[in-house]
Amino acid sequence: MIKIIMHGCNGKMGQVISSLVDDSEDCMIAAGIDPNVSKSNPYPVFNKIDDCDIHADVIIDFSTATAVKPLLEYALVKQLPVVICTTGLSEDMIDLIKKSAKKIPIFFSANMSLGINLLISLVKRASEILSDANFDIEIIEKHHNQKIDAPSGTALALADAINEALDHQYTYKYDRHSERKKRDKKEIGIHAVRGGTIVGEHSVIFAGKDEIIELNHTAMSKEVFAVGALKAAKFLAGKAPGLYNMDHLINQ
Amino acid sequence: MIKIIMHGCNGKMGQVISSLVDDSEDCMIAAGIDPNVSKSNPYPVFNKIDDCDIHADVIIDFSTATAVKPLLEYALVKQLPVVICTTGLSEDMIDLIKKSAKKIPIFFSANMSLGINLLISLVKRASEILSDANFDIEIIEKHHNQKIDAPSGTALALADAINEALDHQYTYKYDRHSERKKRDKKEIGIHAVRGGTIVGEHSVIFAGKDEIIELNHTAMSKEVFAVGALKAAKFLAGKAPGLYNMDHLINQ
Amino acid sequence: MIKIIMHGCNGKMGQVISSLVDDSEDCMIAAGIDPNVSKSNPYPVFNKIDDCDIHADVIIDFSTATAVKPLLEYALVKQLPVVICTTGLSEDMIDLIKKSAKKIPIFFSANMSLGINLLISLVKRASEILSDANFDIEIIEKHHNQKIDAPSGTALALADAINEALDHQYTYKYDRHSERKKRDKKEIGIHAVRGGTIVGEHSVIFAGKDEIIELNHTAMSKEVFAVGALKAAKFLAGKAPGLYNMDHLINQ
Amino acid sequence: MIKIIMHGCNGKMGQVISSLVDDSEDCMIAAGIDPNVSKSNPYPVFNKIDDCDIHADVIIDFSTATAVKPLLEYALVKQLPVVICTTGLSEDMIDLIKKSAKKIPIFFSANMSLGINLLISLVKRASEILSDANFDIEIIEKHHNQKIDAPSGTALALADAINEALDHQYTYKYDRHSERKKRDKKEIGIHAVRGGTIVGEHSVIFAGKDEIIELNHTAMSKEVFAVGALKAAKFLAGKAPGLYNMDHLINQ
Repeated sequence: MIKIIMHGCNGKMGQVISSLVDDSEDCMIAAGIDPNVSKSNPYPVFNKIDDCDIHADVIIDFSTATAVKPLLEYALVKQLPVVICTTGLSEDMIDLIKKSAKKIPIFFSANMSLGINLLISLVKRASEILSDANFDIEIIEKHHNQKIDAPSGTALALADAINEALDHQYTYKYDRHSERKKRDKKEIGIHAVRGGTIVGEHSVIFAGKDEIIELNHTAMSKEVFAVGALKAAKFLAGKAPGLYNMDHLINQ
Repeated sequence: MIKIIMHGCNGKMGQVISSLVDDSEDCMIAAGIDPNVSKSNPYPVFNKIDDCDIHADVIIDFSTATAVKPLLEYALVKQLPVVICTTGLSEDMIDLIKKSAKKIPIFFSANMSLGINLLISLVKRASEILSDANFDIEIIEKHHNQKIDAPSGTALALADAINEALDHQYTYKYDRHSERKKRDKKEIGIHAVRGGTIVGEHSVIFAGKDEIIELNHTAMSKEVFAVGALKAAKFLAGKAPGLYNMDHLINQ
Repeated sequence: MIKIIMHGCNGKMGQVISSLVDDSEDCMIAAGIDPNVSKSNPYPVFNKIDDCDIHADVIIDFSTATAVKPLLEYALVKQLPVVICTTGLSEDMIDLIKKSAKKIPIFFSANMSLGINLLISLVKRASEILSDANFDIEIIEKHHNQKIDAPSGTALALADAINEALDHQYTYKYDRHSERKKRDKKEIGIHAVRGGTIVGEHSVIFAGKDEIIELNHTAMSKEVFAVGALKAAKFLAGKAPGLYNMDHLINQ
Repeated sequence: MIKIIMHGCNGKMGQVISSLVDDSEDCMIAAGIDPNVSKSNPYPVFNKIDDCDIHADVIIDFSTATAVKPLLEYALVKQLPVVICTTGLSEDMIDLIKKSAKKIPIFFSANMSLGINLLISLVKRASEILSDANFDIEIIEKHHNQKIDAPSGTALALADAINEALDHQYTYKYDRHSERKKRDKKEIGIHAVRGGTIVGEHSVIFAGKDEIIELNHTAMSKEVFAVGALKAAKFLAGKAPGLYNMDHLINQ
């Protein structure tokens, strides 16, 4: 039975993970941390991480950027593995994560969805096989109309993974309307569709001679990150110090 | 039995139309025109249109931009309907077509595919119904890696048709990667994917609250234009002078 | 200001409609009916419809099959329009709805989604245009793994709409693996995909010579029915007695 | 420079391979075999394989079922590798291929498309990663309206590959309309769409909790098999005796 400290337990994702753990037989939440303690949970909840004296095997963090630093300090003292799912971290904070990972196991992935990470892994493999058979590669991502950045971080992660598999020879193309010329063999087109309440879709298209391969991922809610976070916690418990990500989990 | 003069009969599309007419019971090719007379056809072929003295009901034109002027002159003299499928015409030539259409029936459509024109018609209708229910509209088109213009003429025709249905309030958005802001309600995103040997795909996406409608067209060869041209010829024979297009054919 | 009685106000859809009305400026909920009166609502709630003495312009019904009969009796007495969204009604109940619609306006649609009904309307139009150009028609629907019926009612409604547009000459084909023969020109293939938590997807494919048109609808939550129900209520208020459905709303 | 004997050189695929080899710098066709010797080719053509005395490194076979036996006998005598692309072989003939492969290298794949075989490989990998995360798997294939068998051999190959990756616990489901029950966790739905001139599309859908992964392949012409056959010939030349397939080529 894996014992989890849920950091940010009363946030939306903290609650989704709590409910997933409820349905799970091989893990339990031993304690929660949240500045907002109004919700009732089937486990003790502490205002801040330093107050928590409950024994656990792993921490899952779905909190806010400023809460990550004290969390890391706590984890270093207690020698506890941490799954960091909080987004929007500063460069400094990411450096601190990397430094801390020399002493404790830390799981930190640009995207916590199992599906997205599988997609990245499949796309790499397809790129290796198809690139010397003259396939062109394009990425389309779709998100809701409130998203302010484009393309999505996941689309860029896909493009970077392809580029890594193909010796970093490719450039990214975001717009073709302003010029009249044939497609460059060494470009990856990236297209950002925005509309309605679309949660997140990513397609990678390999187009060759009379043949197209398309690898797609559709997320229908943010709960997919909770599924990934819980998988990561189970994977991380008991590991040696180091920086782990979904790649390690998928290729274990 | 409708008698057709095939202008550009020994070109690729001229030959496809010839073979479609072969399989058709209600029309025949009475004569062909082509500067290249090397091919053998089951109908008389003339070097240039002025030499043709065969009676016909309608002309189908799949030739080159420079051949359209003498064709129009001939059609005006003979009072013959013309289906113009030649692309890449100058503004002057298009003016001449419009002027000629006051005296003879002329069929002239940005796109001769029945499917594409049906798509345009359905997209207009969907725009009218959905626009006041807060649906965002985006267009994705895909073509082979040798195409030099982007977006495709058809994608622009789709966007224009939507804009026409919605009181011309919309602007077109080709690139989102260079800025950080929410989607504007009054924009239509247009995305040009290029790869492999894709003949032509167009998708129009209506994304609303928890609901998406997507209307797609895929062409697998250029022969779809021949099917449309032949349909247009049958439609045009016997019509009054005027400028006709696929809209008239679809909404007849 | 349109005044609504929400029949089944404390059910899931009743609550969604309540919240949509909250955001709406041209309508309000005057009263709710629900055997479960535990929830607090910003309007009076009655245990059963007969107890309700509040004046209103239209009733929206999202209740249970057995509650529809007393509702109709009440509406007939009060001469109130009713939007019936409850599903799983018996043949007898549907007969009663039809009979009642001679005296009051009733809105009753197999599917209350605006998008699905637009899809049906577009599919009809496409069928008319494409059928004599040798296009084959196939339907694919996708739903979650807990759905027990197949194909979905919406898939059958789409097939019936096509068949109606094409003189009822088509038969439905659910399985091709058990025989070795070419596709019959007059069949509509219907395919029911089941998996995960898919809320509902419907695709209608028109496949012709080197050309495919595909019309798709994706629902991401059941809230789409609430949007449709509210639109129907606004449409129905003030109408003459009769049986109305989404077709009337879309083609008004 | 790899020297190829093209068995069935004047058939459609034989001609496509001839033209691909023309564009290729590392291989050439040394001789062709075809009962029909009417076409002119830039290499000597023999009526039957036994007449061929030209030295070569590998044979590509795109002929007819009855021509495969003498071909194998010839290859055994000459100790030549053979890429067998002819379809519709009897069980006996497949046994003979397996037996012969003990003495010469033979490449024999259910499907010669590089893309399809990559798809199979990716689908296997995805099945392994996703199966224990409760994803349901469904396959949709689409082909033209003249195809008499359903589902396609490729769809079955995909299903078999999934089943192999998942300990053969899955059954195949072709039709759901005749019963009212929830989807079985251990079934793979297989759907055969037929229409128009669709060359071949295969989709494998992994549907989980609020997340869908879809892997698609679209062939736009049969020439994709020629590309695969030529790749196989280059791969096979110089190999040790044995039975090889696209899996070996992709995972080399």
